[in-house]
Amino acid sequence: MAMVCLSDFEAYAKKYLPKIAWDYFAAGADDCTTRDENILAYKRIRFRPRMLRDVSVMDIRTKILGSEISFPVGIAPTGFHQLAWPDGEKSTARAARAMNTCYIASTYSTCTLEEISAAAPGGLRWFQLYVHRNRAASQQLVQRAEALGFQGLVLTADLPYTGKRRDDVRNGFRLPSHMKVKNLEGAFEVCKMSPLDPSVTWNDVYWLRSLTRLPIIIKGILTREDAELAVRHGVQGIIVSNHGGRQLDEGPATIDALVEVVEAVQGRVEVYVDGGIRKGSDVLKALALGAKCVFIGRPALWGLAYKGEEGLQDVLRILQDEFRLSMALAGCASVSEIGQHLVQFSKL
Amino acid sequence: MAMVCLSDFEAYAKKYLPKIAWDYFAAGADDCTTRDENILAYKRIRFRPRMLRDVSVMDIRTKILGSEISFPVGIAPTGFHQLAWPDGEKSTARAARAMNTCYIASTYSTCTLEEISAAAPGGLRWFQLYVHRNRAASQQLVQRAEALGFQGLVLTADLPYTGKRRDDVRNGFRLPSHMKVKNLEGAFEVCKMSPLDPSVTWNDVYWLRSLTRLPIIIKGILTREDAELAVRHGVQGIIVSNHGGRQLDEGPATIDALVEVVEAVQGRVEVYVDGGIRKGSDVLKALALGAKCVFIGRPALWGLAYKGEEGLQDVLRILQDEFRLSMALAGCASVSEIGQHLVQFSKL
Amino acid sequence: MAMVCLSDFEAYAKKYLPKIAWDYFAAGADDCTTRDENILAYKRIRFRPRMLRDVSVMDIRTKILGSEISFPVGIAPTGFHQLAWPDGEKSTARAARAMNTCYIASTYSTCTLEEISAAAPGGLRWFQLYVHRNRAASQQLVQRAEALGFQGLVLTADLPYTGKRRDDVRNGFRLPSHMKVKNLEGAFEVCKMSPLDPSVTWNDVYWLRSLTRLPIIIKGILTREDAELAVRHGVQGIIVSNHGGRQLDEGPATIDALVEVVEAVQGRVEVYVDGGIRKGSDVLKALALGAKCVFIGRPALWGLAYKGEEGLQDVLRILQDEFRLSMALAGCASVSEIGQHLVQFSKL
Amino acid sequence: MAMVCLSDFEAYAKKYLPKIAWDYFAAGADDCTTRDENILAYKRIRFRPRMLRDVSVMDIRTKILGSEISFPVGIAPTGFHQLAWPDGEKSTARAARAMNTCYIASTYSTCTLEEISAAAPGGLRWFQLYVHRNRAASQQLVQRAEALGFQGLVLTADLPYTGKRRDDVRNGFRLPSHMKVKNLEGAFEVCKMSPLDPSVTWNDVYWLRSLTRLPIIIKGILTREDAELAVRHGVQGIIVSNHGGRQLDEGPATIDALVEVVEAVQGRVEVYVDGGIRKGSDVLKALALGAKCVFIGRPALWGLAYKGEEGLQDVLRILQDEFRLSMALAGCASVSEIGQHLVQFSKL
Repeated sequence: MAMVCLSDFEAYAKKYLPKIAWDYFAAGADDCTTRDENILAYKRIRFRPRMLRDVSVMDIRTKILGSEISFPVGIAPTGFHQLAWPDGEKSTARAARAMNTCYIASTYSTCTLEEISAAAPGGLRWFQLYVHRNRAASQQLVQRAEALGFQGLVLTADLPYTGKRRDDVRNGFRLPSHMKVKNLEGAFEVCKMSPLDPSVTWNDVYWLRSLTRLPIIIKGILTREDAELAVRHGVQGIIVSNHGGRQLDEGPATIDALVEVVEAVQGRVEVYVDGGIRKGSDVLKALALGAKCVFIGRPALWGLAYKGEEGLQDVLRILQDEFRLSMALAGCASVSEIGQHLVQFSKL
Repeated sequence: MAMVCLSDFEAYAKKYLPKIAWDYFAAGADDCTTRDENILAYKRIRFRPRMLRDVSVMDIRTKILGSEISFPVGIAPTGFHQLAWPDGEKSTARAARAMNTCYIASTYSTCTLEEISAAAPGGLRWFQLYVHRNRAASQQLVQRAEALGFQGLVLTADLPYTGKRRDDVRNGFRLPSHMKVKNLEGAFEVCKMSPLDPSVTWNDVYWLRSLTRLPIIIKGILTREDAELAVRHGVQGIIVSNHGGRQLDEGPATIDALVEVVEAVQGRVEVYVDGGIRKGSDVLKALALGAKCVFIGRPALWGLAYKGEEGLQDVLRILQDEFRLSMALAGCASVSEIGQHLVQFSKL
Repeated sequence: MAMVCLSDFEAYAKKYLPKIAWDYFAAGADDCTTRDENILAYKRIRFRPRMLRDVSVMDIRTKILGSEISFPVGIAPTGFHQLAWPDGEKSTARAARAMNTCYIASTYSTCTLEEISAAAPGGLRWFQLYVHRNRAASQQLVQRAEALGFQGLVLTADLPYTGKRRDDVRNGFRLPSHMKVKNLEGAFEVCKMSPLDPSVTWNDVYWLRSLTRLPIIIKGILTREDAELAVRHGVQGIIVSNHGGRQLDEGPATIDALVEVVEAVQGRVEVYVDGGIRKGSDVLKALALGAKCVFIGRPALWGLAYKGEEGLQDVLRILQDEFRLSMALAGCASVSEIGQHLVQFSKL
Repeated sequence: MAMVCLSDFEAYAKKYLPKIAWDYFAAGADDCTTRDENILAYKRIRFRPRMLRDVSVMDIRTKILGSEISFPVGIAPTGFHQLAWPDGEKSTARAARAMNTCYIASTYSTCTLEEISAAAPGGLRWFQLYVHRNRAASQQLVQRAEALGFQGLVLTADLPYTGKRRDDVRNGFRLPSHMKVKNLEGAFEVCKMSPLDPSVTWNDVYWLRSLTRLPIIIKGILTREDAELAVRHGVQGIIVSNHGGRQLDEGPATIDALVEVVEAVQGRVEVYVDGGIRKGSDVLKALALGAKCVFIGRPALWGLAYKGEEGLQDVLRILQDEFRLSMALAGCASVSEIGQHLVQFSKL
């Protein structure tokens, strides 16, 4: 079977992953409305393509927080990559480096930060943090990440408690016994989320700032009010995210929330978005609406499930080719030419 | 089979109830448009969740007409609970008391008010009234309820005649011979609705007021005009309701009508809503739009059908957990923090 | 099988009529978009029901052009009733009289006007006219109708040519050899529509006026501009109609066009509507939006197909009961209380 | 099977064409959203038909760039007609001439321009150009076309690169070995699109102007900005087109873009539209919104697939009959009476 578009990888993963793993990756909260809306919302945005521009030389590179990446698509933090492929996050790190893009490693990795670093030295990586009730454990993680050369710290803001994902409850989801949340080994047991601290507030951004010189990116912002707070608390970046629709169901689609956040931020910090990216033209839409870069979650896992590092590279390469082509067909030869004039919201 | 969400109880009830009972509970008027709209309308409301608030200590209690309940979900008046479970309304009363919430017992109960009271002494209960052509019969019922410690009188306003529920007509629905509308035994025969008085008007609110010191709550209001009349006639509360879509088909969904009623009432009386509540986040939406509490009808019957008192407690507990979680994920630690800023109406 | 609502009659007719007859009655032009929109448009209208009004005594009578009918539903002109029932239009006339309402007999009847009159002496009837190229033939028909006691002349304005109904083309539809368009026998052959005059204009209303003292009702108006012209040319009534979606596909639903026409006419002539009426509450919506009466087409044919005169009475009685009930549940005790305040257009 | 409407030809073609050919003709880019939107958008436009106008004599002729055609429907440029019928573009040319309308022959024809001309001498034809990296090759083509009596030069603006059509990728689409892109034989190989020049800009319109005295029509414009540029660069006509949804997916439907382009152009040049025309009433809608003529792509190929020249004539004749009928039913006796007053956009 030819792997032509991301849906092919999705179909493959659904067919070959163990049901409990597929369900875990696919899960959305409650009725999965927001998970699905993330995708549907892209379909309500229409291009206004421009013709007869010279698109013979295409430049799709961009920079995030000063680092150049080969195209504006990175790997969002997702947990438990060994559920998708034996080498887990090591494969993810290698694929991201091979494609010259950014990989945000999750607190819930099944490889240690050290293993991830060693697998792909020199790759651009950020570290995603859940704050532990035992703050010393979190402090130690942040400092390990900085020492290992991670270049950004991503604070997840939308998981004071874990969302209700019905299939995981039905399946009694837990990691197979041979996998571990290695970065936290001993610190807590995965299936009870209680070690995560639901009392985290904006003030904890100052605490994080005191621990590290890394830029802080906050993930999970969906409103202009919170975007304003993020800027005021001195973060360097915002990832507009609803956790793939796995936390509060029936919040906004991320591409819709992006518009509101970009407007509030007014260029003071970089804004990224994840959720619902399935085609290169989705990337173009997100950039037209003000995102500096997008991050993919489930599609990266499908790539891993297909062929590990190589499969994830396939996924990234397809997105790259599609993104380049859609840019050209919309009349843009470089990322700097992408702007809001390229899109309109369908009234339907 | 794990009972994870309310739909699981619905599926169980559909499978195990006698068809005639399932059909009666499920029935909507005519094309069932309003019955289904009650649910769909919730899906058109989107949250605007706020992040990084301290939600480590959650308080989901509220008060209705001065009485504290454990969370803002009560049991709406529905008829014929013995169709769902042998102990009928006695089980309902016990479950409501166990969960520390309010149960509105229907005129069409298959247990007497005395039996209901005796089953769960001390529980918070209101009594729902249909006005009889024989006003003395209604007066006697109201006074029995007050004497038994019921703490509110709910006047149903939307049933001058019974709506046309096609399946009930096809099934020739009537109560099995071993069940009775006990509160009215002798006073009328259920299947012909003629004993109900279609000449009831707003003036009859004054008549009720003259019979009892109980607070009067009017149920079935859908417009600002009627909400204004209710306030002017001195009621203490309004239940925005379309009778589960069983009366006039193609009226508004209750969550949509709630907005209009809350705006008209401007805090002069408490406003509640029933119809279409299927998830804890629906409760959060209703409260964000101004409801003081919601009431569940069919889901309570599904709980009874599953395991009587215990099954209804399961339903309430699931709603409670989901409500608490959705509050936390939206950034609210107590009911007092819930407000209109949390929601927006989708344009789709 | 119980006949509970109009869909039951539709299902019966679809099952028992010869396919060629069912297809002919069911046909819409082209993609049948307008045929189906006529029904869907009603579903976009929401009631704003009012509570606690005295609806113990219901009066659902109305008057059209001065004649009282038992409720505001008449029989629209449709052709070839013998395709539905052996006695054809004679049964239709009897049922309309029995239910004390108005029957508009079509030029394309399979009984003569004389047979129709004789079948139900004293019934309220109007005659629907297609203008013949041979104007003398039309003049003779109009004068026969007047002499026979028909009380209105309905000029169909939307059929200069017959719409393209794909199923009729595929079926090679023509009347069975034992049926005839008796009123025009000899004057033309049905399947070629050429005898109808596509040059008819507004001036021909004056010509008709010169032929008869009957009130003239124009059928097929869909715009404010044509409504204004109708009033200026002295008609007594307008039937907002798109010929059941059988002529120009993708014009407006009639209930939507009604609003525009009523606004233009401002009470100067009576306005009626046909198309898409399937429930008593549809009648209530049409009246709320300004129609004086509605006419049913296909549902009348389904009634005939079920049991002739008796079946059509069943259909009318169901509509009558549903209309009365929906009025009561909306808080109206008489037709005069119905107004625009009862409805709103859904934004969805 | 009776061929009653264009869908019948589509069904035939899908059944009888080789899968690889059907897929190639049917293909849309990516998710095929725009391909399907082209059709759906027509369904959101509603007629406002006018009654009682004299439509006994119908005149459906029009002129494009000064040449009279029998009705406002021409043949859009599509490639590889031999995939549909052995005689390929020769049959197309004959059918267009027989129906007295305009045929735009594609650069990607499987017959030479000389063969096409010889097949139907005297027919009205335009030539569609893709600009070659080797400009001399393009110059030679343009001049051959002019010499052969082609009367217009259509520059396609929306194909700097070929869109991603998943089925073609899966099928490994390429022409069967016995077919050739004859006009470019030797100049390039079809399946690699590299010979096409992605550096073409508006300035190349001036270059084309220097090569030929033929009127230049630009095809693929979707925005007011590009429409303005087209007028300023001196083209004689604009075809609003999204290449049948085969290039950038999720751009606007052409009938929606038409409104914007017509408004920008304000009559300075003729505007045409292709994409989504499936019924005569679609043609009427396009004209009402300002198109001078429409062009059909896939339906012409279905006609060829059915019976070559004869099948394409059938398709055109059906469209012609439907267009004439819809004009009459909307109250227009000639093309000059068609205007924006005839349509409105549905809010749904």
